[in-house]
Order: sequence, then structure tokens, then C-alpha cells
Amino acid sequence: MLEDNQPADVSLRALTLVCTLTPSPEQSSSELLARQLLDALSERGVSGPLVRVVDHDVRPGVQVDMGNGDEWPMIRQQLMAADILVLATPTWLGQPSSVAQRVLERLDAELSETDDVGRLLTYGKVAACVVVGNEDGAHHVSSILFQGLNDVGFTLPAQAVTYWNDQAKGTYRNYKDLDETPEGVTKTTQTLAANTVHLARLLKAAHYPAPPQSGE
Amino acid sequence: MLEDNQPADVSLRALTLVCTLTPSPEQSSSELLARQLLDALSERGVSGPLVRVVDHDVRPGVQVDMGNGDEWPMIRQQLMAADILVLATPTWLGQPSSVAQRVLERLDAELSETDDVGRLLTYGKVAACVVVGNEDGAHHVSSILFQGLNDVGFTLPAQAVTYWNDQAKGTYRNYKDLDETPEGVTKTTQTLAANTVHLARLLKAAHYPAPPQSGE
Amino acid sequence: MLEDNQPADVSLRALTLVCTLTPSPEQSSSELLARQLLDALSERGVSGPLVRVVDHDVRPGVQVDMGNGDEWPMIRQQLMAADILVLATPTWLGQPSSVAQRVLERLDAELSETDDVGRLLTYGKVAACVVVGNEDGAHHVSSILFQGLNDVGFTLPAQAVTYWNDQAKGTYRNYKDLDETPEGVTKTTQTLAANTVHLARLLKAAHYPAPPQSGE
Amino acid sequence: MLEDNQPADVSLRALTLVCTLTPSPEQSSSELLARQLLDALSERGVSGPLVRVVDHDVRPGVQVDMGNGDEWPMIRQQLMAADILVLATPTWLGQPSSVAQRVLERLDAELSETDDVGRLLTYGKVAACVVVGNEDGAHHVSSILFQGLNDVGFTLPAQAVTYWNDQAKGTYRNYKDLDETPEGVTKTTQTLAANTVHLARLLKAAHYPAPPQSGE
Repeated sequence: MLEDNQPADVSLRALTLVCTLTPSPEQSSSELLARQLLDALSERGVSGPLVRVVDHDVRPGVQVDMGNGDEWPMIRQQLMAADILVLATPTWLGQPSSVAQRVLERLDAELSETDDVGRLLTYGKVAACVVVGNEDGAHHVSSILFQGLNDVGFTLPAQAVTYWNDQAKGTYRNYKDLDETPEGVTKTTQTLAANTVHLARLLKAAHYPAPPQSGE
Repeated sequence: MLEDNQPADVSLRALTLVCTLTPSPEQSSSELLARQLLDALSERGVSGPLVRVVDHDVRPGVQVDMGNGDEWPMIRQQLMAADILVLATPTWLGQPSSVAQRVLERLDAELSETDDVGRLLTYGKVAACVVVGNEDGAHHVSSILFQGLNDVGFTLPAQAVTYWNDQAKGTYRNYKDLDETPEGVTKTTQTLAANTVHLARLLKAAHYPAPPQSGE
Repeated sequence: MLEDNQPADVSLRALTLVCTLTPSPEQSSSELLARQLLDALSERGVSGPLVRVVDHDVRPGVQVDMGNGDEWPMIRQQLMAADILVLATPTWLGQPSSVAQRVLERLDAELSETDDVGRLLTYGKVAACVVVGNEDGAHHVSSILFQGLNDVGFTLPAQAVTYWNDQAKGTYRNYKDLDETPEGVTKTTQTLAANTVHLARLLKAAHYPAPPQSGE
Repeated sequence: MLEDNQPADVSLRALTLVCTLTPSPEQSSSELLARQLLDALSERGVSGPLVRVVDHDVRPGVQVDMGNGDEWPMIRQQLMAADILVLATPTWLGQPSSVAQRVLERLDAELSETDDVGRLLTYGKVAACVVVGNEDGAHHVSSILFQGLNDVGFTLPAQAVTYWNDQAKGTYRNYKDLDETPEGVTKTTQTLAANTVHLARLLKAAHYPAPPQSGE
């Protein structure tokens, strides 16, 4: 049931950054939903690493490399090799985790990194988000991730997030403790994978033009 | 200085919704910056109407047509004919205007409107945002517009907003009263036009696949 | 079980603004939870009117009176007579309703209205919020209401909101359709009433000092 | 020009948490504005420590003590001794810093810590915020700090923030590099100090009642 003119079935790489506050090997709700998205991406020929950011010493700052044993440069190298960034976060006090905000701060450095025609190195990469919470917050957390990622150069496909929140002032369950995956989440995850891959293939085949001031 | 594989130079239509609180014919800062973006889009072969929403009786509600003389259906018809939506808003109390929020609420109805393979009618349309303020707010206002528009099916190109805010706790000037357009704004507006048109052409040539449940 | 030094048991007035998108006489979830809070306030000697804002022609703008049949001045008069403002809103696309944003915009005018020692006329008034949603959003919506109300002069008691959201990606029920009020909501509503009345009595007995520039 | 019934001139303690990403001894814009607020508080008899949080190993998590050399418990001890919390943050990608979000996450643990009549240990404490940015964001960052702090029990005085942002898409200066403090900032800082002290004295003299379920 696909259209003509679908993008060629090239293979794509994704980097997944899980921003739970909980170090490995403890279970994480945001990692669980991220892995479900990765499975759906995998069915569409996408592969690549998953990094639990809190396991690494990502230093505070807004430079590409903050020195002092900063482990962001290693993560950044994986990002540069990826066509797709999956950013997964829990919700704390209604916000993305401090680890997710740390990732956004480190991506701020990309605003100074351009290719030989003046495009940000992030241009052409597509972002997909994953948000879970034992209380409410997914819409707002998405809005922050969307704005931050888009500001530093990522493109967002239609409906660029899969998410789950429990009732607010209800039961406070965690996603990892649900008996089964809600049907709405499964459907959203599948659609997100399909949209992300479609857009990433299009942009890989036809990169954004050079910014106006350098080429037109 | 363009890449191979650029999308074909098809003509595109844009609908611009200006969400100032001020009825015509008074001048509006958000309309001024929107028109600057339209000029940049026009250089790339894009044309279409600009609507100052407050001039119309857009009824409160989350249905496609709220009846009682509701003028949203007329605006929606123009949206359906467009490949690109430009949404322009001032910043009040750090937020998008009540008129912009009204537009988002009316777009909520699109979550129930699909084509014959199950895609939202907004899928394939690209959104670009315009935000001005005499105090701070553009990043947050962008985040709300991005999340709302993306949630209802729009795709966001890299760096999907052009904006200007005056200093907070400084001079409180309005964009329409500046002596000249700041260079940063001009550059951002040009880049936004280029990115928006690039992505809209790609998606017009290769529509998103049908959602997984109906096609795979 | 009260402390010494509790504020005197003076009577207080509250104005409740319900910002549902739905005109009377239809039922409204935000009005229902607002009325539950009013009951709890009433047990503490607080009384006053409830206004469903969408039933009135509140014009767009940021002046005290926008003319042209603007009905905000009538609502504002009730606000000026009140010690407590209860602001109740549904959640649409994760945001406060366009009607709530309209109220905040109209309150922006209060930044220019001061008493004879230079205090805003809103100083000394306490705000309490009510948020409901059939998907997530209460924390973010609260944050917007808190910031807007505080910016224009209102004081916020500890835990200044009562709220309820259904699961995100779950069942999408409305608060008015629940079989019973969740225990967490009842407890939060009671605490909000107690904290609001406590603080409003303290501030009524001992008004904020004149702003430094005019009195010190 | 003060009212009757002003709260007694008791001495108060404040804890100031500066959430810059930059370790000591580098200069920090958020610390500079925080120190200006502390000067204004000091004129009103308030004293207490300033902590640059990034200089300490505050572990990720939402418990009172995360172990493993976690330095939050030492900071928390200072918070418990304080009547006023000053929370100061820079703005990165339009958001509070990852360090500020870390502080909010650690304060989440306070939702389980109550006194012998069931009140949160934070009840009765007043929060004041400080926000700076070289681009826009103060209103949104305030909204997040207000909501987070209020959710965990802090009370917010009228106009509970002092802030400064440079123009967005303009010059990108930092607060610490300004030639002089803008008059609007000085006035706001003074008013914030006055309002914070007024409210903290009132609440110290007359603590919130026990929550309804335990006392009424």
C-alpha cells in the first residue's frame, strides 16, 4: 500500500541515548520503551548502539569536549556516524531528566560545527523521542526535546515521539511494571519507526541545501 | 552549490496564520516577520494566502466545525490545499498568544481525519514558525508550537523557526519598531525558507507510508 | 492540632474563573474540580462567584478594557473584590486552554495598575489552580499558570494546584466521567484549600510592604 | 510607608544554590545576580551560605541520600536550616541548566518527608528565583522552577524571580559582562528581596496548618 517515489531502501544507523537517572544494570522504563522502538526500527533495516548516558562521565558544559576525562566526545563520535538519534527520557517533576538536559547542553556545541558548505553537522539527521513517566508530562517533555533538538539542527518527522504516562493523582505505576504494553503505545511506536525511517532516507538521498549566505 | 539529488523544482503552496491579538488594519510585529519569511519562500517558488486569525470568528472547541458561524472551516480549507503551514505568534506572558492556542486546539480535530490508507491529512505538510516578543520567550513558544503541530501530523525541518525577542528587563521594543532587521534574523529567515521548501518538496514527491496497522 | 499564631478567622472572598472551551450549560470537567475546591474553601469561610469565561465576550488584548462590548472589565471588578483567585483550566495539546491564556493576557494589564504606595493591585491576593485533562499535562499547565499569575502579582501557597490527568496513551477518560473522585485528588484539594486560606489571611492582615523605590 | 501588622523583625536564614555549569573559581552570571539578591536580602536581616552546586558531587536520583559519596545530604542539611531558598540558574537551550534540574530531582524526595503533624519539611519555606541568559528564556525557566519548587512544598511570594536575558537573535552578551546593572533588574531584585522576607516572616510566625487528613 505504499506510494510511488518511496525512498530507496538504504541501510541507516541510529544512536539511542537513554537518559534514565538509574545506572546499569538496574531496569529502566525509558530504556524499555526505547528498545521497543529499536525493534521497530530494526524491522526497517536500522541498526546501531544504545548508550545509557548515566553510566558515562558526561561533564557539564557547552563545548564539544570539556576535557578532564569527559566521555561525551566518544558518544558524539557515535552520533556523527548516525542518521537517526533516538533520545529517551523519564519525566521528573514534569520535566526531562537532568541527564537529558545535559545531553541537550552538550549538543549546543553543534551550533558551531559546520561542513564545507556551511551546514551544521547535525543537518540531515532525524530525531525520534521516547518519554515515560509515572505521572504526567509527556507532551511537555516532548516539546522541550523537540525544540532543543530542532534548534541544534535535527529534523522531526510527523508525530516524532512515543510515550506513556500513568494517571496523574492515580496509581503512579512505572512503564517497566505494566503487565502488557498498551495498544496505543505499540501503534505509536510502529508509526514513529516508519515515519523516522522514511524521512531519514529522504534526507540521506537529498541533503539540505547549503545555507543561503554561503551558496545562493 | 547544491547537492545531487535535490528535489524537483515543483511549485508549492503555503498558508500563513498570523496570531497577533491585534485586528487589522493595525500593524503587527508577528505579521511583519511572517511577511519577511513569505518573501524568502516566494523566492523559492512558494505562494499562498496570509490570514490574520483574530479578524475571523474562530470558535472555541476541538471539532473541525463548531457551527454557529464558526470561520475555522474556511481557514481549514486553505490549510488542506497547502504544502506548508507558517504559524506566526507574538509572545504574551512568555507564551504563544491565546489566538495561537486557539489554532492548535482547532488542529486537534485533525487527529481524527485520515486519508484512504489511514494517514492524517496533515501528514506530508511541513510547518515553519515565526515568534516575536518585546520580552523573552521565543525558545519556549517555539517548543509549544513544535510539539502541538508535530502532534497533529506536521513535519518540522531543521531549525524550524525564525524569531526575535528584545532584552528581558531592558528596553521592551517591538519588532515592528526596530530601525533595521537584525542580521541574525535575516539569516535565520533565509535558512528557514530554504529548509522548509527542501523538506516540503521531498515529502510531496514521496509521501509517508501508510501507518503500519493498515499496510504492513 | 493548629499552631499558635494562626491568622485570625476573617472572612475571605474568592473569584473562580473556569476556562473550559465549552459554553454553559454543558458539563465541564474543569468546572467540576473547581467546584470541589470551592466546597473545601467554603468550609473555611470563603465565598464568592464562579464565572465560566467562555460564556462572556472577553476581547483579545492586553489592556484593562478593550472596549467594543468587552466583558473583561466586569470580571476584573469581581477580581478586585476578591482575596483569592481560583483559575481552572482543561488541558489541550498539553497546554492551558486558549481561554486561560486569554485570561492571563488580560491580567497582563495589571502590571500598570498600582495603589497609592506603588504596589500592584493584585499584591496580597493568593492564587490557587485547578487543572484537568484526558491526557497528560497538569505539571506543565500548572507551571504556565503559576508563572503568569505570579508575574502579574499573585502569591502562591505551598502546593498551589489540584489536578487530575488520565493515562497518556491509555483510556482518555474525562474527569467528569469518573465513577468516583480519586483519593489523591480529594486529599490534594483539601490541602490546597487549607494552604490558600492560611496564606490569604496572613496577607490580608499584613500586606506586602511598598516597593523599595517608593518607600525605603 | 509600611502597613500596620507587619511581621516582627525576626532574623531569617537563606540558602542560595547557584546552578551554573561552570565550576569555581570561574565567574558566573547566575552567581553574580544571585549575590546581588543576597545583598538586598542582607539589608533586611537575612544571612546564609551560597553553594555552587557543580563544585559538589550531587548524584543522580530521587532519594534523600543516593550514597556513593553523594554530597546532596550536606546541602540538604543547609536547606533544612533555612527559611528561604534562592535558586539561581543560567538558561541553556531555553531551559534551566542540568544542574538546576538535578536539584529539583533531589528535592522530589521531600514529598516523602513530613513533620509530626504531617506537613512536608519544606512547608513554610519561601523560594526566590534568579535566572540569566545570553538568549531568551527567563519566563519559561521561571515557570519550571516555580512549578517544581511549589510542587515539593515551597511558597512563592508575589513576583518571585529576578532575571535578565539578552536580545534573542541580537548580541548574545552575558550578564557578567554588562557595563552596568540595568535599572529594571535592580528594581526587580529589591522588590523580590522585600516580598520574600515579608512572606518568610509571616510563615515563620504562623506555620501552615496540619494537612486536613491528620488534623481536621
